[in-house]
Amino acid sequence: MTQAERKAEPSSQLSALNRPIHGVWSPVLVPVQDDFSIDVERFLAHARWLLDKGCHGLALFGTTSEANSFSLDERMQLLEAALEAGIEARQLMVGTGCCALPDSVRLTKHAADNGCKKVLMLPPFYYKGVSDAGLYRSYAEVIDRVADDDLRVLFYHFPKLSGVPITVGLIELLLADYPGIIAGLKDSSGDWSNTADLIERFPDMCIFPGSERYLRQGLESGGAGCITATANVNAAGARAVWDAWAAGSDALDGLDQNMIAARTAIEAYPVIPAQKFLIARHRKDPQWQRVRPPLLDLEDRQGVELLESLAKIDFDLG
Amino acid sequence: MTQAERKAEPSSQLSALNRPIHGVWSPVLVPVQDDFSIDVERFLAHARWLLDKGCHGLALFGTTSEANSFSLDERMQLLEAALEAGIEARQLMVGTGCCALPDSVRLTKHAADNGCKKVLMLPPFYYKGVSDAGLYRSYAEVIDRVADDDLRVLFYHFPKLSGVPITVGLIELLLADYPGIIAGLKDSSGDWSNTADLIERFPDMCIFPGSERYLRQGLESGGAGCITATANVNAAGARAVWDAWAAGSDALDGLDQNMIAARTAIEAYPVIPAQKFLIARHRKDPQWQRVRPPLLDLEDRQGVELLESLAKIDFDLG
Repeated sequence: MTQAERKAEPSSQLSALNRPIHGVWSPVLVPVQDDFSIDVERFLAHARWLLDKGCHGLALFGTTSEANSFSLDERMQLLEAALEAGIEARQLMVGTGCCALPDSVRLTKHAADNGCKKVLMLPPFYYKGVSDAGLYRSYAEVIDRVADDDLRVLFYHFPKLSGVPITVGLIELLLADYPGIIAGLKDSSGDWSNTADLIERFPDMCIFPGSERYLRQGLESGGAGCITATANVNAAGARAVWDAWAAGSDALDGLDQNMIAARTAIEAYPVIPAQKFLIARHRKDPQWQRVRPPLLDLEDRQGVELLESLAKIDFDLG
Repeated sequence: MTQAERKAEPSSQLSALNRPIHGVWSPVLVPVQDDFSIDVERFLAHARWLLDKGCHGLALFGTTSEANSFSLDERMQLLEAALEAGIEARQLMVGTGCCALPDSVRLTKHAADNGCKKVLMLPPFYYKGVSDAGLYRSYAEVIDRVADDDLRVLFYHFPKLSGVPITVGLIELLLADYPGIIAGLKDSSGDWSNTADLIERFPDMCIFPGSERYLRQGLESGGAGCITATANVNAAGARAVWDAWAAGSDALDGLDQNMIAARTAIEAYPVIPAQKFLIARHRKDPQWQRVRPPLLDLEDRQGVELLESLAKIDFDLG
């Protein structure tokens, strides 16, 4: 099938272009000072740079933001700083799912009250093997207590880290009671068959693969785009794939291959320290390299290897 | 080997009786109201009852306390309420390990400043597969920032829930730099061979099995006692085993068997809801049955089954 045929082909699925939440979103790395406190100025500069590079929006306080390593106050203050600096609320998707119900309520209400209606919610992730009914109650309590009809909840499915999967059954329970508010899902399972299944089962939800590796397949199947950690260093590459797909351009194949090659090179290392390392090198700013415990900065040896493997492909961070 | 021989046998291990932290400790269930807020009065009554039943101390804000489902403020307020109500700081071991470094610092400092020097610390538990060096940095930062020489840190090893094991390598790293402060470990792995290995490797640490199932084996091997969820409904049974062991009594075998039979019956169900159910029935107080999301109250059908299986053994909650 040529690109032109693909573009012309009618689909029963809503195109990503017409979905209320769509595009290439970057979960934003959060730089820290020597004492591990958030470096607000470096953060704001990076957030603006990601938007300039073509991100449709920024997911703030997911895994890549080291969100669970920061306190509620740190998270709320950084969001306020971003808004005060002129990043628009509509450009943000805010991570608000915590282990403790009152914490999830507080962060979600804070985001919504500040105009950020899109929230990306982890399930409470300490207890494992909890029932869908228990997780339903967690999400429902947050939605009820925040009580904002404009709230848009996206599930954050990352079973390898949370240990608590978002099941089809849970989504069905919540969609039935909160239509409109239950709006989407980020699938960080790394399992394309799971993403494809969710897109097919929930055609009205905005389903985002958690890696640009599946951006194109997602777009061709009714997905909404991607929310991908590695957009922090390759936002332009992911946006180029999006644009080529949207235009039905024959450049899509090559752009897609380049983008995936970069992803493959980076994810051979711990993705958060590896990207902070790349940004530190690119900006000649060693402070960028630092991560908050329990993560560790990338070892120099690993960084050199990563730079070598990226030098072999068509990749330009600049 | 008879009881008398066992008592007389010299051991290279420190006896539990001579360890600075020892005995039968109950992680305390935390009752909640209809709106899931903490029910302070019911909590205080239960805490006192556990001490009356023979607990050497109470572990507040571990898994059984649903600690990670409560906000920092809720946790600190309940600790203050317990102290104000006359529960002594020395009788408490406070759970203070969170995902976020500033949260762990805040809770640990709050406990220590209120005289509670014994803290039971989960590792930061969102990121999985983190290195010992990263976990070292997490614990070391907390200890350095709290800066209290009287602090006594007990590791909380519960890999099934935290997903982040406490390794021998991590303990060695921290013991080397913080001797005296690194004081013990609760082993909730459920794997006796792991507990035995830790007791042997770290003879100066107070190692507690996370189940009364291994209380006796632990005591016979140099363990410090047990910190066990099911002491909430069988503190007297566990204390009787401790006393029989300490006295070298021939009653030990029978008491141990009874206690383990009760544990086996209860842990066939979700342990937190099951015990809240048993207490609700025993006190004719249905409010006790409630758990905070994401957990779910025990189903009545399960509760009836549990009561039936407990009726078959020598078990008396009263």
